[in-house]
Amino acid sequence: MEKLSIIKIGGNIIEDETSLHEFLKLFANLDGMKILVHGGGKKATQMAHKLGIESTLINGRRITDKATLEVITMVYGGLVNKNIVAKLQALQTNAIGLSGADGNSILSNKRPVKDIDYGFVGDVKKVDNQAIDVLISANFTPVFCAITHDGNGQLLNTNADTITSQIAVAMSKSYETSIYYCFELNGVLKDINDKNSVIKHINSESYPALLSNGIIADGMLPKLENCFDALKNGVHAVFMGNTTILTKENENYTKITL
Amino acid sequence: MEKLSIIKIGGNIIEDETSLHEFLKLFANLDGMKILVHGGGKKATQMAHKLGIESTLINGRRITDKATLEVITMVYGGLVNKNIVAKLQALQTNAIGLSGADGNSILSNKRPVKDIDYGFVGDVKKVDNQAIDVLISANFTPVFCAITHDGNGQLLNTNADTITSQIAVAMSKSYETSIYYCFELNGVLKDINDKNSVIKHINSESYPALLSNGIIADGMLPKLENCFDALKNGVHAVFMGNTTILTKENENYTKITL
Repeated sequence: MEKLSIIKIGGNIIEDETSLHEFLKLFANLDGMKILVHGGGKKATQMAHKLGIESTLINGRRITDKATLEVITMVYGGLVNKNIVAKLQALQTNAIGLSGADGNSILSNKRPVKDIDYGFVGDVKKVDNQAIDVLISANFTPVFCAITHDGNGQLLNTNADTITSQIAVAMSKSYETSIYYCFELNGVLKDINDKNSVIKHINSESYPALLSNGIIADGMLPKLENCFDALKNGVHAVFMGNTTILTKENENYTKITL
Repeated sequence: MEKLSIIKIGGNIIEDETSLHEFLKLFANLDGMKILVHGGGKKATQMAHKLGIESTLINGRRITDKATLEVITMVYGGLVNKNIVAKLQALQTNAIGLSGADGNSILSNKRPVKDIDYGFVGDVKKVDNQAIDVLISANFTPVFCAITHDGNGQLLNTNADTITSQIAVAMSKSYETSIYYCFELNGVLKDINDKNSVIKHINSESYPALLSNGIIADGMLPKLENCFDALKNGVHAVFMGNTTILTKENENYTKITL
């Protein structure tokens, strides 16, 4: 099977113009077929603040009300996505910017209201691997923002990590897929205070111990759960680290396999 | 040759949710291959105002400075484009939202500074008909916002009428293309005060008289010049009128041919 890389960049890279440019050069130079997924980081929060839209938090969780969804659609779907696409074109990468509504590529369900009404938040239901395959087979490089739709005309704010893993799972039907989560750390750390304490390899054998001794906790926990879910559903490997994991020079990152 | 319809909607349709929904139903029901081009109307101006960005006007012409371009990218490329795409998906039309940067589909030159520096405004240089053909041949329906790029990473605000005609011209190499300009009038009017005084047919023989007696003037003049330019470069026909020109019921519109 042909190889396909799905790369997710976090907010810290998007928020800093120099970091973004450096990352996009690495992404453009990456061989083979590839897909980029980006969140929006603090840019949407900043824009909401400028517009006088206050974030609603319930039990510490952010709620996507109508006004917030509009800001997210403007910032992630417009400002961030189109600028990334234009910059990639300048780097000779034939990028095409997408939300999950475009080409009906990612269909979601609005998260059901249980204890909390999260508002316009989507949980991924179906990734159309054939629609995405048409694009990458025509040498387009899809750039997804973290927005999906419900098929009834409603856009939905959707977790970018989940979009990444769900795309990877769907594309595993016809490609050997690898996920690269680029973030502010060098990888999964043994000691959160030592940025060089990278755990180089995690698999389903070593994972339970990392959980039980609390090395994997807090924000890292859902990320890892997400990774193993992807691996169990056909993804070949997951890499976590800073943006240089896209190069052959970096040997200090976390590789996760089954 | 297969037929391809390129439809442009103006700001008045986008600004009103009911009008937009009615239009999208007509667009979704239109047979054959089709492309939609939209401007953004007053929504960008309103958003700029909310953000405290004042429009710069020189000799009555709006200047696209950096802050204004960001607003345009958010509103046209994000909010308007992604909502249209999601609504079309709900109407079983497999829309894919694009700026000219996406798939390198529309390359522009930043308008040279002569008497006026228009800022980040692009004049269309090249439409990649093959990139667009890949998409429509795969049954995607492209939805273009009025943003292009210069190939060096810079997005550019670009006139939606020009984008429409330039796409039509480029696609004429492999399709019999027709342009539909949907706007607030029933067509080109003999008497601007009589909305029913539609001139049903204009061609290069009747056009000079309409110019010399001042029937075509002001805002209509560049639109018509644009139409004849498109027709001379391979476009089959241009239709102007309200959104019902997309139906067979409406017989009150302006058809323009060579």
